[in-house]
Amino acid sequence: MQQPTPPPANRFERRRAHSRQALISAARRILAETGDTAVSIQQISERADVGFGTFYNHFDTKTALFDAAVADALEEYGQLLDKVTEGIDDPAEVFATSVRLTLQLSATHPEITQIIRFRGLSHVHTDTGLGPRALRDLEIGKASGRFTIDDPKVALSAIGGALIGLLQLNTVSEIGPGAGEQMAELLLRMLGLPADEASDLATRPLPLLS
Amino acid sequence: MQQPTPPPANRFERRRAHSRQALISAARRILAETGDTAVSIQQISERADVGFGTFYNHFDTKTALFDAAVADALEEYGQLLDKVTEGIDDPAEVFATSVRLTLQLSATHPEITQIIRFRGLSHVHTDTGLGPRALRDLEIGKASGRFTIDDPKVALSAIGGALIGLLQLNTVSEIGPGAGEQMAELLLRMLGLPADEASDLATRPLPLLS
Repeated sequence: MQQPTPPPANRFERRRAHSRQALISAARRILAETGDTAVSIQQISERADVGFGTFYNHFDTKTALFDAAVADALEEYGQLLDKVTEGIDDPAEVFATSVRLTLQLSATHPEITQIIRFRGLSHVHTDTGLGPRALRDLEIGKASGRFTIDDPKVALSAIGGALIGLLQLNTVSEIGPGAGEQMAELLLRMLGLPADEASDLATRPLPLLS
Repeated sequence: MQQPTPPPANRFERRRAHSRQALISAARRILAETGDTAVSIQQISERADVGFGTFYNHFDTKTALFDAAVADALEEYGQLLDKVTEGIDDPAEVFATSVRLTLQLSATHPEITQIIRFRGLSHVHTDTGLGPRALRDLEIGKASGRFTIDDPKVALSAIGGALIGLLQLNTVSEIGPGAGEQMAELLLRMLGLPADEASDLATRPLPLLS
C-alpha cells in the first residue's frame, strides 16, 4: 500500500511536491486521452506547466512517470470504493457493490475509468489500487468459506479482467442499464455463491458514489 | 468473420500480397515486444524489408496497420482453437478447453499470447478472432439452456477479460500448473454450471495444440 505523504515542511518542499503532482496529473490526462505514452517529456512538461529540467528531479524515465500516474489514479479509485463500501461486512456484497459502482464511475470519473480500461490489467497484481484490496477480500472470503476458490490470485485475475472487459464493452457499444448487475451476479456465481443469492446481492440498493 | 483471401492472380499481385503480409508480420513482432506502437513508419518498413512508400500502398495510417496486425494474430489464434475443439459439441467443454489451451499457448505461441495480453481486450467485440466465436458459443449455450446468462455480450466481456487477466498473471508471477483448470472451473460456474460439473469439465484430458 502507498504510505500517506507527510505534509511538506517548507516552501521548497511544497513547491517540489506541487511540481511532482503537476507532472502526475498531466500524465493522467494524457493516458486517459489515448492510453498511449508516445508523447515526449518536453510535451509532458509543457502540459504540467513545469520546466523541462524539473521532470528529472522527480522521475528517471517517462515509464516511471506513467507508472506513478496509473498508481495514483488506481489508488484514488481504491480509496473511493473503500469509503463507499466501508459499512459492508460481507466480502460478497463488497464485490457486487464495487463492480456496479465501477460502471457508474465511467460517468462521474471518466479519467480514472479510461486509465483503468487502458492500463488497469497490468496493475492488478501490484501493491496499489484495487488489486490488493480485492485480493484481501478474496482471502477473507476464502478463509470464512464464503467463497469457494483455490488460488485467490487466479480469482483476482478473473475479476479484474472481467471488470475491465465490461468497461471496454461500455466504450464500444450501448450497454443496457442492468449490465453492472449482470456482471456482479456472474462474478458472485463464479466465486461459488448459489445463483439465487448471487442475484439477490447484485440487485440491492446501491450506496451513492461521493 | 474474415473472408479467406483468394490466391493472387499474377506476379504483381503476389508481390503486393507478400509486402502486405511482411508489414503485418513486422507489426505483429513489434506489438509482441512492447505492446507499444510508438515506432515510426520508417522503422516498420525497415523491419518488414519493404520500401517506405510501399507502406502507403497498403495502409493509410500506422493505426490501421496495427489493427490489421492484431486482427491477423487473433484470427490465427481463433482458427487454431477452432481446429482443436472441432470435435467437441458441448459449448461448456469448448470454453473449458479453450481457456486451458490459451494458457499453454504462452509457451508454444508467445507472439500471439503477447498480442492477446496487450491488445486482446480492445478487440473482443470486433468481428475477427476469438470474440465472435465465443459469442456464438455463448448464444448457442444460452438458447439450449446450458448457460444461465442474460446478455451474451456481458458474459463475453467477463470471459475475455478473465482470460487476459490470467495471461497477465502468468507474466508477472509464477502460477501453479493448475491455474488454467481453476480459471476454466471459475468461468463455467459463472456461466451457471453446477460446481461439480464445472470441476469435472475443467479437468478432462486436453486435446493437443498442433
